[in-house]
Amino acid sequence: MSENLNIANAVKKLLSAENVLILCHKNPDGDTIGSAGALYHALKSLGKTAAVLCSDEISERYAYAQILLFEKQFEPEYIVAVDVAGMQLFGESVEEYTKCIDLCIDHHPSNPGYADFLLLDANAAATAELMYEIIVRMGVQITTVIADCLYTGVATDTGCFKFANTTARTHAVAQRLIENGANVVELNSALFENKSKSRIAIERAALDSLEYHFDGKCAVIFITLEKMEKIGVEQTDLEGITAIPRAIEGVEVGITLRQQEIGRYKVSVRTKRGINASQICIGLGGGGHEQAAGCEVEGSIESAKTAVLSEVEKHMNKA
Amino acid sequence: MSENLNIANAVKKLLSAENVLILCHKNPDGDTIGSAGALYHALKSLGKTAAVLCSDEISERYAYAQILLFEKQFEPEYIVAVDVAGMQLFGESVEEYTKCIDLCIDHHPSNPGYADFLLLDANAAATAELMYEIIVRMGVQITTVIADCLYTGVATDTGCFKFANTTARTHAVAQRLIENGANVVELNSALFENKSKSRIAIERAALDSLEYHFDGKCAVIFITLEKMEKIGVEQTDLEGITAIPRAIEGVEVGITLRQQEIGRYKVSVRTKRGINASQICIGLGGGGHEQAAGCEVEGSIESAKTAVLSEVEKHMNKA
Repeated sequence: MSENLNIANAVKKLLSAENVLILCHKNPDGDTIGSAGALYHALKSLGKTAAVLCSDEISERYAYAQILLFEKQFEPEYIVAVDVAGMQLFGESVEEYTKCIDLCIDHHPSNPGYADFLLLDANAAATAELMYEIIVRMGVQITTVIADCLYTGVATDTGCFKFANTTARTHAVAQRLIENGANVVELNSALFENKSKSRIAIERAALDSLEYHFDGKCAVIFITLEKMEKIGVEQTDLEGITAIPRAIEGVEVGITLRQQEIGRYKVSVRTKRGINASQICIGLGGGGHEQAAGCEVEGSIESAKTAVLSEVEKHMNKA
Repeated sequence: MSENLNIANAVKKLLSAENVLILCHKNPDGDTIGSAGALYHALKSLGKTAAVLCSDEISERYAYAQILLFEKQFEPEYIVAVDVAGMQLFGESVEEYTKCIDLCIDHHPSNPGYADFLLLDANAAATAELMYEIIVRMGVQITTVIADCLYTGVATDTGCFKFANTTARTHAVAQRLIENGANVVELNSALFENKSKSRIAIERAALDSLEYHFDGKCAVIFITLEKMEKIGVEQTDLEGITAIPRAIEGVEVGITLRQQEIGRYKVSVRTKRGINASQICIGLGGGGHEQAAGCEVEGSIESAKTAVLSEVEKHMNKA
C-alpha cells in the first residue's frame, strides 16, 4: 500500500527528485500524455533531467506536446506514474521500470496504491486538472506548451467539458490554461474534429443497423464481426459507440449488440434516468451501474435481440 | 442608429425599467432563450413585471428555464431585445412590439443598431456570457434557474466550449454558473445528447453517401431531396451536417452537396487551414470565408460532383 500524500508533500518530493522517469498507461489517451508532458516540461524548466516512457506508441496527433521519450539517455533515479489506475495498465514492455515506482499521481478512485507514495484526487475530472495545481505549486511558469499539454488532458477526459465529471474547478483550470496561452482553437479542432476513417465507417454501420422498439423509447444498434473485420476497426474506434442509441430524442433505453463470435454478443445497455440499466442486465446474467450496464447473450441474433428486449420491456413498465 | 452603452449604463436603464417585455429572435436557440430567461428572472427578483416574447414556439426541451411568455398580461413600457442581430430576425408575428425597442443586448458584431440603445460585446462568446455580467452588476443573486438559463446560452453558442469563440472568460463564467448551482450534468445531457430521430436518419443518409477522393484528402457527402422528404427533415436537423466530412482524419476539404431541386445543388465547402474554401467556390460562382464557403451547381449529380472536384483539385495542388 502507498503512503498518501497531499499536494504540498508531493511537490516537495518532485522538487528534490533528479533524473526523473515519467510513466504513462498503455493505450495512452490525452490525459496520461498531457499530464506526463506537462510534468516533463515543468521538471526540465527547473533544470532537471527527465523523460517519458509509455509501452505503446504516442500518436502523431499529440506531437505538439513535444515530449522527450525515454531511450535510456540516463539512469532513472525517481519514477513517477501519471494517470495510471493500476499496475496492469503499464504494459509488459516497460516492466523493468514498474517494480519500484516512487510516486503515483492519479484521479481514479480505484487506484490500489501500488507506488511508494500516492497523490490521489478523485474529485479531479482529469489527472491534468490536478497536475495544473502541482505545477503551479512547484513555482513553475505555465508556458504555452505546458498549457497545451494540460488543456489536452482536461479537455479529453471531460469530452470537452461535457461529461458528468466536469466541475466548476475544471472550468477554472481551463480559464487559466487559456490565459497562459493554450492554443485552444487548434487543440479543440485536433482533438474533437478528427474522427478516423474507420470510426466513420463503424458509425455508418451502426446507424445502418439502427432499430426502434416500444414506440421509439428503445433504440438498438448491432455491430457484426464481419463489419468490424472488413473495416479494420481498432479498439479506439469503438469508444463511445454505445452512447449513440441513448443520445436520440425520446429514447430511454439504448442497446448496443456487438458480436464477439458467431452466436455470442456483448450487450451494452445505456438508460436515461428512471430506468435501471443494471437491473436489465442482471436479468441476463450481467450487471453494472444504474445508467450504464452490460452482459453477454448467446444464440442467433434474433433470439439475442428478443431476450434483451424482453428484459427491457419489463423494466420500462416498472418505470 | 443606436446610442452605444457600456454595461454600467445598460444596468442603470434596466434597474429603472418597469413592465419589461423581453424579445427573442425567431427560430430561438439556447442563447436567445437562456439570455431572455435569465433577464426575466433577474427582473422578477427585483419585484418588476416582465415577460418574454418570441415569434416561434420555445421548444419543450427548455421548459426548465421557467419563462413566462408574454400574453398581453401587462402593457409593455420598456422593450429589450436579447441576442437579436437584426430587425429581420424578430419574425412578423411580433411586429407590433419591434417598432420602438428601447434596449438591445447582443454579441453579434454585425448588429446594425436598430434599438434606441445598444449594449454590444462582440468579444462575448454568447449573449449569455454578457448577460451574466449584467445580472451580477444589477445586484441580483444568481439563483439556480438563472444559472441554468445562462449556462444554456453559453454552452449552446460554443458547442459546449469547443467552438473558436470560446475564451478564458467563457470558462470563467461557466465556473461561476456551476458554483451557483447550474445543473450542468442534466443540461449537458439535454442539450448535447439529444438528437432528433430525423437528425439521426439524415446523418445515416449522409454517411451512406460518403465518398473519398484524392487519396482521402477530400470527402464528399450528398443529400437528395427524396431522402430529405422521406425523412421529413426540418431545418434544424441539417445544422452542422456540412461539418461531418471535414471532421474526418486526413480530410483537408469536406464537401456537402444538397439537392435543392432536380438538377440543382447547394454546395458547402469546408476546408482545413492551408486550403482556401472561398477560392474553390469563387471558381463555381459562389464565395465565403477561408475555411467555409458555398455555391450552387447545376446539372446531373455526376457532372455537379465532377465540377466541384475539379475546382477542389486545383486548390489542393496550390496548397
